[in-house]
Amino acid sequence: MTLIDGIEVDTALVEQLGLSLEDVVSIFDRQLQGEHPPINELCGRIEEYRGKMLRPTLVLLSGLVVEGGRLGNEHSVAAAVVEMIHMATLVHDDVLDEAEMRRRGRTINSLHGNEMAVMLGDYLISNAFHLCSTLEQPWVSLELGSVTNTLCEGELIQLFNRNNTCLDLATYMTIVEKKTASLIGASCRLGSKLSGSSEDVAGCLERFGRKSGVAFQITDDVLDLTGEQEVVGKSVGRDLEKGKLTLPMILGLGHAEDVVQEATRVKIDARDLVGLRAVLDESGSIEQSIGIASKLVSEAKAELAGLPESPSREMLCMLADGILDRKF
Amino acid sequence: MTLIDGIEVDTALVEQLGLSLEDVVSIFDRQLQGEHPPINELCGRIEEYRGKMLRPTLVLLSGLVVEGGRLGNEHSVAAAVVEMIHMATLVHDDVLDEAEMRRRGRTINSLHGNEMAVMLGDYLISNAFHLCSTLEQPWVSLELGSVTNTLCEGELIQLFNRNNTCLDLATYMTIVEKKTASLIGASCRLGSKLSGSSEDVAGCLERFGRKSGVAFQITDDVLDLTGEQEVVGKSVGRDLEKGKLTLPMILGLGHAEDVVQEATRVKIDARDLVGLRAVLDESGSIEQSIGIASKLVSEAKAELAGLPESPSREMLCMLADGILDRKF
Repeated sequence: MTLIDGIEVDTALVEQLGLSLEDVVSIFDRQLQGEHPPINELCGRIEEYRGKMLRPTLVLLSGLVVEGGRLGNEHSVAAAVVEMIHMATLVHDDVLDEAEMRRRGRTINSLHGNEMAVMLGDYLISNAFHLCSTLEQPWVSLELGSVTNTLCEGELIQLFNRNNTCLDLATYMTIVEKKTASLIGASCRLGSKLSGSSEDVAGCLERFGRKSGVAFQITDDVLDLTGEQEVVGKSVGRDLEKGKLTLPMILGLGHAEDVVQEATRVKIDARDLVGLRAVLDESGSIEQSIGIASKLVSEAKAELAGLPESPSREMLCMLADGILDRKF
Repeated sequence: MTLIDGIEVDTALVEQLGLSLEDVVSIFDRQLQGEHPPINELCGRIEEYRGKMLRPTLVLLSGLVVEGGRLGNEHSVAAAVVEMIHMATLVHDDVLDEAEMRRRGRTINSLHGNEMAVMLGDYLISNAFHLCSTLEQPWVSLELGSVTNTLCEGELIQLFNRNNTCLDLATYMTIVEKKTASLIGASCRLGSKLSGSSEDVAGCLERFGRKSGVAFQITDDVLDLTGEQEVVGKSVGRDLEKGKLTLPMILGLGHAEDVVQEATRVKIDARDLVGLRAVLDESGSIEQSIGIASKLVSEAKAELAGLPESPSREMLCMLADGILDRKF
């Protein structure tokens, strides 16, 4: 057993994951390596965007967790593809949000301008699809194409609702489901299907991923309100600044007491982050948001109940629990 | 026979192409039609970007021109895919160029902002790949993924060379080959391969497309210098304004006479479109550019010499010749 963040995890699994993730990184880097040094250099900057590699890890664990699951090269390729799609969305998101910081470093758009960031994002999307097409399983391209359509729909609906202080909970959930949860769900689904799982099992894993994904986005919303830039590693208060209503704000605006609704609206209109945080904290909206995330994590873990007990199943549960503890 | 622009063309072929292109448009529109009215409305605006549908037409003609070539649904799908990729590049190009006009209408970025244009472009790329994955020929996705990688490389190299008044002819040609010629060449190649052509024949058609594509870009460069906005239908002088050196400028800067080089440089530095046009006209650089385009068109047509004589071969030659006459 190995200790990670004070939790015991299976040493053999940790080692296997570590090796597989190294493999994923090589596939990722090799795909982007070309004959033009300035492009290679620009792509090299993407490494700085690399975080905990949640999505590749989910592809791999989902490949292992199913009955008789073994990892093959196709899992590593699929994992590199989902990571590349994720990186592309980060690069373009930073353009949309005019963000200057990401993972403690400066964003591509702030360093090289919006034009370069738009084209680099396109290059990543294109390479993701190209890499995906090298797989001998053509259904992966079809499923991932559908997921990236959904992802873009989420981003578009979010854009249509910028500065919409009447955004309701249902639309917020649609945005999060499409923008964040779909790719995380697909990572789990693809990993299991590549290990030959049944459609039923793939469905359980997909739901595990989607619910975890929504929980992840909610904690992200909370951190954008309550986090400190040095800890979070990226600009905070961006949602408020860009007129994106997040769950704590929506709950504040729909609060039982009129005085809370009014105070929330005033702070949002004034783009007053400190004031808004105080109002939402006082009203319980932030705690309520965390409660919703917590419930989603429980539901996510319940989706795994039918799978054989294994270190990979434990680790999936640990990752889901970790969403609630994240500080960045 | 039917007369198009004073040239006799086979009536049956014109009718067949017309029907197939209608099919391509339905596939294109159906792919983008979803459950969110604002997204549908935004995608509807893309229709205004639709021009002569050169790339889909090339897919179809290349499918017909080869020995025993017949058009199937796969040709229409592939044609819709290349058109969707092309539209995505137009939408993102307009963001990069801060262009306000396209085909006599206002651009997406000028109407809905850069953010919406970035996301709409992403949505189009994603849908193009998704649509492509529905084909029963998985090699199409692999080939097109490689082409879009190349296309993005061309855009990136062009961005790296903004305001580079030392841009040489070789780098200019690399940019044009990658950014413009690759997708036009691929359209021809895919069309013929989907009709079961040999790799040799597919290569001839690809070269036909690539050479025509370079010629097309050169005439575009010339029109951006010499055209009038009302006729061209989009903003002119954008290349100069955005610091993109085009062929006539490169020829002016490399002119045998120092006085021409100096005058060209001064006008470029001053962003003086009228003055630059006069210098390049006087020096013969514009005529020389048109001469290079003309030579490329001849070479392109020569690539088709080994194909059976047919109305579709004639029409391919006619399209190539048409590049030299374009006014928009």
